[in-house]
Amino acid sequence: MSSDLEKIRGLLKVHGSPPREVYYDFENSGWVPPEVVEAMLPYFNVKGYGHPSITNKPGWEALEAVLEAQEFIARSIGATPDEIAFTHSGTEANNLAIIGAALAKRNLGKKIIISSIEHFSVLVTANELGNRGFKVIQLPVNEHGIVDLELLDVLVDKETILVSIQTVNHEIGTIEPIKEVVEIVRDRNPETLIHTDAVDGYTRIPIDVREIGVDLLSLSSHKILGPKGAGALFIREGVRIERILHGALSTQKYWPGVENVPAIVGFHKAAELALENWSDKIAYVRMLRDKLMDGIVNGVPDVLINGPRKDGRAPDNVNISFLYIEGEALTVELSLRGIYVSSGSACTSRVLEPSHVLLAIGRRHEEAHGSILFKLTRYHSIEDIEYTIDQLMDAVSRLRALSAVKE
Amino acid sequence: MSSDLEKIRGLLKVHGSPPREVYYDFENSGWVPPEVVEAMLPYFNVKGYGHPSITNKPGWEALEAVLEAQEFIARSIGATPDEIAFTHSGTEANNLAIIGAALAKRNLGKKIIISSIEHFSVLVTANELGNRGFKVIQLPVNEHGIVDLELLDVLVDKETILVSIQTVNHEIGTIEPIKEVVEIVRDRNPETLIHTDAVDGYTRIPIDVREIGVDLLSLSSHKILGPKGAGALFIREGVRIERILHGALSTQKYWPGVENVPAIVGFHKAAELALENWSDKIAYVRMLRDKLMDGIVNGVPDVLINGPRKDGRAPDNVNISFLYIEGEALTVELSLRGIYVSSGSACTSRVLEPSHVLLAIGRRHEEAHGSILFKLTRYHSIEDIEYTIDQLMDAVSRLRALSAVKE
Repeated sequence: MSSDLEKIRGLLKVHGSPPREVYYDFENSGWVPPEVVEAMLPYFNVKGYGHPSITNKPGWEALEAVLEAQEFIARSIGATPDEIAFTHSGTEANNLAIIGAALAKRNLGKKIIISSIEHFSVLVTANELGNRGFKVIQLPVNEHGIVDLELLDVLVDKETILVSIQTVNHEIGTIEPIKEVVEIVRDRNPETLIHTDAVDGYTRIPIDVREIGVDLLSLSSHKILGPKGAGALFIREGVRIERILHGALSTQKYWPGVENVPAIVGFHKAAELALENWSDKIAYVRMLRDKLMDGIVNGVPDVLINGPRKDGRAPDNVNISFLYIEGEALTVELSLRGIYVSSGSACTSRVLEPSHVLLAIGRRHEEAHGSILFKLTRYHSIEDIEYTIDQLMDAVSRLRALSAVKE
Repeated sequence: MSSDLEKIRGLLKVHGSPPREVYYDFENSGWVPPEVVEAMLPYFNVKGYGHPSITNKPGWEALEAVLEAQEFIARSIGATPDEIAFTHSGTEANNLAIIGAALAKRNLGKKIIISSIEHFSVLVTANELGNRGFKVIQLPVNEHGIVDLELLDVLVDKETILVSIQTVNHEIGTIEPIKEVVEIVRDRNPETLIHTDAVDGYTRIPIDVREIGVDLLSLSSHKILGPKGAGALFIREGVRIERILHGALSTQKYWPGVENVPAIVGFHKAAELALENWSDKIAYVRMLRDKLMDGIVNGVPDVLINGPRKDGRAPDNVNISFLYIEGEALTVELSLRGIYVSSGSACTSRVLEPSHVLLAIGRRHEEAHGSILFKLTRYHSIEDIEYTIDQLMDAVSRLRALSAVKE
């Protein structure tokens, strides 16, 4: 047995099972509601387990499921089914958008503009293109995380082949002015492709691709309480991008190999559930968000809210810096109390570098390191929030006392 | 509703549910045994639904599951856990091997050698590199699908950066002499990376990466009755390849974004089930294979067996050309009788081109078009085989009578 495995098993044994558990780490991963799993289950071995392009019954059932999902998800963002390309994940959708667009347009120019607070699946991918001869510019943001539109207006030129600005920031919940971004870019260079990573916006704010006017838009199943294994890229009719994976194609132009039908069915069901009575559900989540934010600000001294307030912020996002403590330590302390969160960005936590998003909005290193991210869902209760605030007050003062003793 | 969806629903309504159903199309897609689904289920919403790199309980549980899977799958092919990189699919593993190796070695040479009967995820990917300045050579095969080792010996030179020959052919079940391939390549150029697509070999024949001596080896979950959503690439210690997808990394060096933990758990369980009492299971499958092959040859006139016989053939593979009929028509006719197969290669059936594998072993177009592929599993029964032979005899003579009338 590997030593890593031994360590983890030891850790889990010590940890045990807290009597009450509240999970908030939906930014990084999450549980899937039973209704979604139930919708997926038949596709493992009862029906539709065939290949959607093969002319037999299990294949036709698979094709029906994929077409239904494509139609529903397309309609939910104002697109046509042919404009939706399923991918294995939101990360793959972002890779496909960035690399696929850059390669398709490489003869027209080399400039790519992204925001400085993009998710790693856009940021690292763009940087990788930077190593291959493209010129990548990171657009700065203000203290709320809003991209600098005036600078964008100056930066977009005839060489600019791609602009990628996310719809909603994954860490601090900033809702970006994408419509204005599109207007500025179209005005400066109508040939520039415009992509938005909407994985943290979809089902949180209304998204209509015609109204926004983007060419490419990424979605992720697991970010809307669907299963892992499916994402989607909206590709506006007439827009051509290159493939990043190759092989036998079935129903999906950018998915070689057999489609993950159970995951696509789960993605479809998760979208349906999230969008049914959407206004009520999202008002409830927003109420929980404000209750948690106010509770922490009023109950715990020396905290900073990261990101914008009220309507400028995604309804499910709470991000707080707890000064004088390490977010990693607080994450573990909260886990022992059954409250599951993450610190900084998931992407950065393994390497223990402060979140690039928090640094970009002007937080100092120690403020970024003390940050905790909560993502709320319609499945959280008011009791969950109250329990979390109580436990946080206790956990934070305990950790601060410990660190005061150490100094 | 889209017209495609309407058409499929109409088709399914006409089709109905046959009283007895036997599924053989495991080359393209397949059902997952209940034990595998059961192993996956808790990871959707009971435990381990967190992110394997995040320091909270659901994250540690996810990490434990991923490490366990990595350790089991590594050991099953004689590798160490660090040499196993999970991917979203076997197709992605092949893309990663081919593109990742070519990019890593691009300064040493441009020649890539593959066999002419590789799966599309190798063939199309290599051809794509051919468009980007690499020189791709397809090694011919004999009438049994065995690669030409003498020609390989001549072709490998100082410019050769990658050789990719599959372990077992996906369509005709040829077991390739990979050990000899490795010896020849190492002798000619020790710097050449050697990859084998083993997705149709794993759990069918013994695979030991040290004994074979390859650098890269691809596996797929859904090809061993595991769920879609996971594959793996063995990357020998010390071998460096480039990434093809970019973003936030967690436990897997080549999987940006959160790992699909339920799929990885299912992959692990499927491998465990397949390898437990392996000799008995595989002897049973081989017996079914021979029974089906003999039954068809003895019961249906004018057929050709595609691929090698006996020990030269994968124990689960039956591929027969039924002369004077279209494989597509036979696939539909058999589906109405509850027997689910595919014709030619899945990859080619949508475009209705004859399988490149069958053409490469010398079959004429009409012989390739009349081919049907069956993949057997330990879950098939002798009664399934007998039912299939009976129905085939009837279906084939019916279709031949119809086509005789038409002429």
